[in-house]
Amino acid sequence: MPDAVIARRIVLASHPAGAPAAGDFRLETLALQPPGPGEMLLRTVYLSLDPYMRGRMNPTPSYAPSVPLGGVMVGEVVAQVVASRLDGYAPGDYVLAHAGWTSHALSDGDRVRRLEPGQAPLPAYLGVLGMPGFTAYAGLREIGRPQPDETVVVAAASGPVGSLVGQLARRAGARAVGIAGGADKCAYVRDELGFDAVIDHREPGLAQALAAACPKGIDVYFENVGGPVWQAVFPLLNPFARVPVCGLIADYNGTSTPRPDDLSVPALMRAVLSKRLTLRGFINYDLEHYRDDFLRELPPLVRDGTIRYAEDMVDGLENAPQAFMGMLKGANFGKLVVRVAAEDGAV
Amino acid sequence: MPDAVIARRIVLASHPAGAPAAGDFRLETLALQPPGPGEMLLRTVYLSLDPYMRGRMNPTPSYAPSVPLGGVMVGEVVAQVVASRLDGYAPGDYVLAHAGWTSHALSDGDRVRRLEPGQAPLPAYLGVLGMPGFTAYAGLREIGRPQPDETVVVAAASGPVGSLVGQLARRAGARAVGIAGGADKCAYVRDELGFDAVIDHREPGLAQALAAACPKGIDVYFENVGGPVWQAVFPLLNPFARVPVCGLIADYNGTSTPRPDDLSVPALMRAVLSKRLTLRGFINYDLEHYRDDFLRELPPLVRDGTIRYAEDMVDGLENAPQAFMGMLKGANFGKLVVRVAAEDGAV
Repeated sequence: MPDAVIARRIVLASHPAGAPAAGDFRLETLALQPPGPGEMLLRTVYLSLDPYMRGRMNPTPSYAPSVPLGGVMVGEVVAQVVASRLDGYAPGDYVLAHAGWTSHALSDGDRVRRLEPGQAPLPAYLGVLGMPGFTAYAGLREIGRPQPDETVVVAAASGPVGSLVGQLARRAGARAVGIAGGADKCAYVRDELGFDAVIDHREPGLAQALAAACPKGIDVYFENVGGPVWQAVFPLLNPFARVPVCGLIADYNGTSTPRPDDLSVPALMRAVLSKRLTLRGFINYDLEHYRDDFLRELPPLVRDGTIRYAEDMVDGLENAPQAFMGMLKGANFGKLVVRVAAEDGAV
Repeated sequence: MPDAVIARRIVLASHPAGAPAAGDFRLETLALQPPGPGEMLLRTVYLSLDPYMRGRMNPTPSYAPSVPLGGVMVGEVVAQVVASRLDGYAPGDYVLAHAGWTSHALSDGDRVRRLEPGQAPLPAYLGVLGMPGFTAYAGLREIGRPQPDETVVVAAASGPVGSLVGQLARRAGARAVGIAGGADKCAYVRDELGFDAVIDHREPGLAQALAAACPKGIDVYFENVGGPVWQAVFPLLNPFARVPVCGLIADYNGTSTPRPDDLSVPALMRAVLSKRLTLRGFINYDLEHYRDDFLRELPPLVRDGTIRYAEDMVDGLENAPQAFMGMLKGANFGKLVVRVAAEDGAV
């Protein structure tokens, strides 16, 4: 049993006004006592950075509580058990835990899930096999329900949600159209992920390009970005189109200003009626009943390379804020993960 | 077999600009030849007037084709067979048909359904037992799904859709809150229909009154009006609320102008996500698979007075335009039906 460890952690220093800035985060150290009865000490190996975290930085809660000022930034991690006085966990075990942006944490096992090394690379459990992948899987199964020959559109198509949405849509026999930012990401989406078409939203003429890529309209729009993409998608929605809404990253910084030609709510509601659209928001854990299917179906497909994914690995907990700020601007390429410690580091 | 009959009918004279005016309609006469092989001649007894007809008067089609200039206004009727060369129909039979605003029509039996007199009063098949009633029934079963102790809100609560939504919600164990215009309608909704609470939208302070009537928020908002009511409902929607959208009468005349404090689309989409709302449009015939259940369950409840309804009967086809224009302003009290001919009239 080790003595107290010094945990490095990143806390919320101030609520961002618009896009977060470096000063909104603060790196702190904290001495953690050895685990008490029913506790274990975790060493973070990989930290997941995800867009939803931006919402938690606001003082007003959304669907989940805000991070308090001075509190550790929330987040999922792949961690290794260092010391344990909790039944069922032994030093060396790998787990998925909601430890936050921290190098070490004490845990009572709440919301912890054991990982079996060798099933898939460990960081994949934060991406294609983790929350983002499950979001894609469950949102399509419950709400999107792509049918053969339908057209499925998703933005951030090189990211962990979008890339799986498109690949699962194709497996269902639908046409997958992706939207991504920049030539490199677009080439990856088309050539590596096998989408039927891809559009670069950094090029002018998004609406026209999307219309050309969707000659039979759009049957499923998996909404994870909001903003101008939604404006381009909306007129192309077919009767009975389904819009699972899992994220609105374009609006998270709260800086998007309505323009005179923006869609109005009456126009949106008229389309909901006349096209019989379904708009439905969901958070991945609302659809927990699909978790077992997901964990049975996806890992073999990832292992054998049928399902592809991109990972953007950043080294060092201290670099998490910069990487997170970049992600909100689309600077990452694939699932953004921070390597907090080496997998094979000494426990 | 009679000779040619002179049909009186009301045609679309011009596309309305905003609210329809008398000059947008024209009463015509037309000589109908006796039915040919596979045809029957129908005599309209009751004509249904419904808000959706306003949309058909626009030159641009919505979910259904527009009425062409000079074409007969569309609509469902209860009619009696005058003469028949169509198998299965004999003079004297009562049917439900899509004959339009006309005193007589030839029919090949398409979209015609036989009515059994004595099951319920004939005009009820245009209201509580017809399209509006089925809209309420199917929209609640498929989308609204009220649960015990939930709060269900509906506007136009004395009308044929709203009155059944509230009564069915209560039968499901939910709390029914109605919105209606004027003291008489509100008293009817509360005292006769048995809603738990009712709000007069003609009184000031709709948003405050609705909040007071829904202390536990709103779980189902059955959207059939749009406009200011939606603005008042929106902030009160609970997580996982369902919004079946079957009509937007407040917007049908296209005269509602967005105000500075109107809900924005980004705000709406943020709520769809964070509250996991379901907004889903539907037209009654999308949900045809519930028709048999509806026709089995509802007529006995109407016959024994368990389910109540109000009817606003207007005499004379020539008065249909005026009655229709009034309905769009909420002047009717209950299901608006035009008595085109006496039930017991000579065939």
